[in-house]
Amino acid sequence: MRILMTGAAGMVGRKLTARLLRDGQVAGRAITAFDLHDIVPPETPAAPGVAVAAHTGDLGEPNAAAALVKAKPDIVFHLAGIVSGEAESNFDLGYRVNFDGTRALFDAIRLAGHRPRVVYTSSIAVFGAPFPDVIHDDFQQTPLTSYGTQKLVGELILADYTRRDFFDGVGIRLPTIVVRPGKPNKAASGFFSGIIREPLAGMEAILPVSQSVVHTHASPRSAVNFLVHAAGLDGATIGPRRNITMPGVGVSVAEQIESLRRIAGADAVKLIKEVPDETVWKIVQNWPTRFDAKRAKALGFVAEANFDEIIHAYIEDEMQNKAVGNRQ
Amino acid sequence: MRILMTGAAGMVGRKLTARLLRDGQVAGRAITAFDLHDIVPPETPAAPGVAVAAHTGDLGEPNAAAALVKAKPDIVFHLAGIVSGEAESNFDLGYRVNFDGTRALFDAIRLAGHRPRVVYTSSIAVFGAPFPDVIHDDFQQTPLTSYGTQKLVGELILADYTRRDFFDGVGIRLPTIVVRPGKPNKAASGFFSGIIREPLAGMEAILPVSQSVVHTHASPRSAVNFLVHAAGLDGATIGPRRNITMPGVGVSVAEQIESLRRIAGADAVKLIKEVPDETVWKIVQNWPTRFDAKRAKALGFVAEANFDEIIHAYIEDEMQNKAVGNRQ
Repeated sequence: MRILMTGAAGMVGRKLTARLLRDGQVAGRAITAFDLHDIVPPETPAAPGVAVAAHTGDLGEPNAAAALVKAKPDIVFHLAGIVSGEAESNFDLGYRVNFDGTRALFDAIRLAGHRPRVVYTSSIAVFGAPFPDVIHDDFQQTPLTSYGTQKLVGELILADYTRRDFFDGVGIRLPTIVVRPGKPNKAASGFFSGIIREPLAGMEAILPVSQSVVHTHASPRSAVNFLVHAAGLDGATIGPRRNITMPGVGVSVAEQIESLRRIAGADAVKLIKEVPDETVWKIVQNWPTRFDAKRAKALGFVAEANFDEIIHAYIEDEMQNKAVGNRQ
Repeated sequence: MRILMTGAAGMVGRKLTARLLRDGQVAGRAITAFDLHDIVPPETPAAPGVAVAAHTGDLGEPNAAAALVKAKPDIVFHLAGIVSGEAESNFDLGYRVNFDGTRALFDAIRLAGHRPRVVYTSSIAVFGAPFPDVIHDDFQQTPLTSYGTQKLVGELILADYTRRDFFDGVGIRLPTIVVRPGKPNKAASGFFSGIIREPLAGMEAILPVSQSVVHTHASPRSAVNFLVHAAGLDGATIGPRRNITMPGVGVSVAEQIESLRRIAGADAVKLIKEVPDETVWKIVQNWPTRFDAKRAKALGFVAEANFDEIIHAYIEDEMQNKAVGNRQ
């Protein structure tokens, strides 16, 4: 079967690519062709028996999406997107990529007419404050960022196009993915990774918000597992509500720091400097806290059980085994 | 002040126009200019001291929206839209008008830069089955029609553009408006009016669904009241959740028919013929039943208290007083 992945040069995209090529199959079918797309050239890992090709461009450009789906991929992973902080600071870019780009891709798939499985990464940013203590699956979506708005529009088109039988979509609302390897990105959530990653490397990290902030997290390893699981789900089991809030670990920043202390000691914790940032706080204060994610769990999605497991996943995947494709 | 209204040739648009011109003011400010827009030429009622102008065109066409907002209206009523049945049967038309047209208008207002109040008619079609017995204001939006999807996308852009201070938007989710005067339109909900309107005129009416169907209704008079009230609401009081489910009367079709029997007698009821229609049923079965609409009521929106009042409103406004602008 043929796979198409957008956003393939991103952190999750690279890990998912490595995982799929190592598995050699997804949803029970052997992978024979793999198209990787991004705005910057994605790496093309060699894999026996798989035709891996890189494609570079802007999905919002006329005909870009149509060219990409011409080969009629059996599964499309749509990961491409402008992250939250950048979508907030650059209005035009966020709407062009996250809104127009997603619609262009979904329309190209509709017009290709072959009805593939489409796995779309949405985000818990589709929810907006005020929140109940625990957010249930039937809670309203009222985003308070342009990023959350754009992701939600993608969810809606995906659900409608699935209902109309243009394709078979599954949207997964990712919690904040930590611990991200490498350098900080422009996501407003970047510090959630930084306060673990930098101290583990003996470096100083900035905490721009209060330690009382509660938020939900899952590891990159879990994000990849979610995507692979979504690719193989039976559409009839999902039903018409095609966008699903993923499970995760709901913890305060203080609890994150206690995990770090247990795993890396008090000296590591001392490297975290609290430097309040009003811009980050304005975004983060409207973010959801905890989810029950019952539907996702019933559908077989599994995340870490606590924040210690999330830190251990980072140490195993990024510090002990530097390969991009980690064990699952 | 200057008013702009899209969808001005529609039933609600004509009634709202007449009401505003009769009042001579809205939100406490005198109306001096009134731009009426529709895809077909809207009527331009004469009103002393008000420059009433008709504009005809397709909001989705390049520059159409920009030309319309060039005069910087203080209040924009965006009523234009393809109705539910037609948006379902004509995919391209629905997305072009309801999705692209709304976005084009909102973007034109954003680029005009003068931050008017924008009142947007959304619909309870943004909700999709299964439902709880009563739908509370924090219930999720998972539409099961393309119309509901398109209306919800408009809501999301409106909320984000308001949050970004591009304009000051209020979206009102109308229940099904009955009793509609005149001929049936292409809305799948048309029969809800037909089973009252036709028997009152001594004519036969078709009921395409079961009498057990429960749905929420308000009169055209209430719809106009909602729109006028929304135009004058204080934005700070509304808060960031700018789309509000309107109150209405939640009744079964059987209860509607009992109201008709009380008001017009058994002979009128005998004119209702039950002819099940699978296409209509497929749409209606996924429609919401009852709402508590607490936020709307707290913000001062008022609907009828029971279905008898809705029938009486029709008799008073359409049978006893045939003028388009009714008493409120």
